[in-house]
Amino acid sequence: MTIARPLSPTPRSTLTRKKNRAVLDREVLYEVLDAGLVCHLGLLLDGSPVVLPTGYGRDGDTLYLHGSTGAGNLREAAKGAGVCVTVTLLDGIVYARSLNNHSMNYRCAVVHGRARAVTGEDEKWHGLRVVSDHLSPGSWEHARAVNPKEFASVTVLALDLAEASVKVRAGNAGDEPEDVAHGTAWAGVLPVHTVFGTPEPAPYVPGETPVPAHVADRAGKPVDAPRE
Amino acid sequence: MTIARPLSPTPRSTLTRKKNRAVLDREVLYEVLDAGLVCHLGLLLDGSPVVLPTGYGRDGDTLYLHGSTGAGNLREAAKGAGVCVTVTLLDGIVYARSLNNHSMNYRCAVVHGRARAVTGEDEKWHGLRVVSDHLSPGSWEHARAVNPKEFASVTVLALDLAEASVKVRAGNAGDEPEDVAHGTAWAGVLPVHTVFGTPEPAPYVPGETPVPAHVADRAGKPVDAPRE
Repeated sequence: MTIARPLSPTPRSTLTRKKNRAVLDREVLYEVLDAGLVCHLGLLLDGSPVVLPTGYGRDGDTLYLHGSTGAGNLREAAKGAGVCVTVTLLDGIVYARSLNNHSMNYRCAVVHGRARAVTGEDEKWHGLRVVSDHLSPGSWEHARAVNPKEFASVTVLALDLAEASVKVRAGNAGDEPEDVAHGTAWAGVLPVHTVFGTPEPAPYVPGETPVPAHVADRAGKPVDAPRE
Repeated sequence: MTIARPLSPTPRSTLTRKKNRAVLDREVLYEVLDAGLVCHLGLLLDGSPVVLPTGYGRDGDTLYLHGSTGAGNLREAAKGAGVCVTVTLLDGIVYARSLNNHSMNYRCAVVHGRARAVTGEDEKWHGLRVVSDHLSPGSWEHARAVNPKEFASVTVLALDLAEASVKVRAGNAGDEPEDVAHGTAWAGVLPVHTVFGTPEPAPYVPGETPVPAHVADRAGKPVDAPRE
């Protein structure tokens, strides 16, 4: 159990705009990271910025990322390149009376730092499990375990959550006073919900096989619901 | 009307892994970009990679991004810094019989290049409209127009879709032949659906005001449904 520490912004993790949307509470950082499914990992590769979606999971103040040893961006990150990991949850479209005050409701966590390639066997197993439990809780116990060859083909990275920022826009539309007073256009929020649908068994799964609870229980639930 | 050209991959837009997931059809690039709502814009800012969610819209082979003139990342992009713009749509969690073959269904478009600050008044208006029509179709006609002060406070960037890649994973789980033959674990896809919810009027909108069709018609529909 990690004791939560407040966010300690450095210049690059200090918001320069819409500071009212900055959140300085580490618990909110955890909530956003735990509610997302994929992050966007950005780094410089051969001199160009590259941003790719990546699976991740959090354990305390460590974010684990994983992927194939063949992935160029993970290889570069494993060498200690500076990275930015961003998790964005879109919660709604904000319609204001003025076009200029149209906006989006969202929760966004941004983590800066240098990742560490996890090479110790125990921590690598742990990191894999953290990512697996994040994306598909229950699979670690249910599915066929990772074998040594598969284990060797996976890269696990660890990124400390020391330097992070969280930005949240929630609530309804905001308009200029004159638009509130005299405007006639509709204003409001059109929520965006991301939910799990109905499980679709693979063709090689016998028809009488029940969908296991760790999958079936997610059906119809919001993706950002707390994991079991 | 722009005539579609096939994707012309350069080294940085050529997939090095899972090449079977690469899509070389420009129409698919358009579909993914048109289906998303926010992109992730990555660039180097003060020596560090920064990845932030950003609104965008597409017109032919031009991607328009917009934001406040105060946003540091847009200012940097406007100077001609190399950027990577990524749009990811998550379509499902793939449960395989083996942990190692767990995956995600997704559609992901990645655009590399250097953005151009749109300074000409006509094109800037056009870019704003393209972004507005992408995020909230109908608002351009319905809401109070952008005034000169607001117009001046917005940065519009244009990014050519010359160098892009698209990666798609769809369909059901795949497993090793021995797991297909002898495994007992459940395998399948748990779809992820992103849908618009019920419009929530702002408190300053009179109760009897009907929700206009351009908002009401989106309620309950998938976010990635084709725009009207």
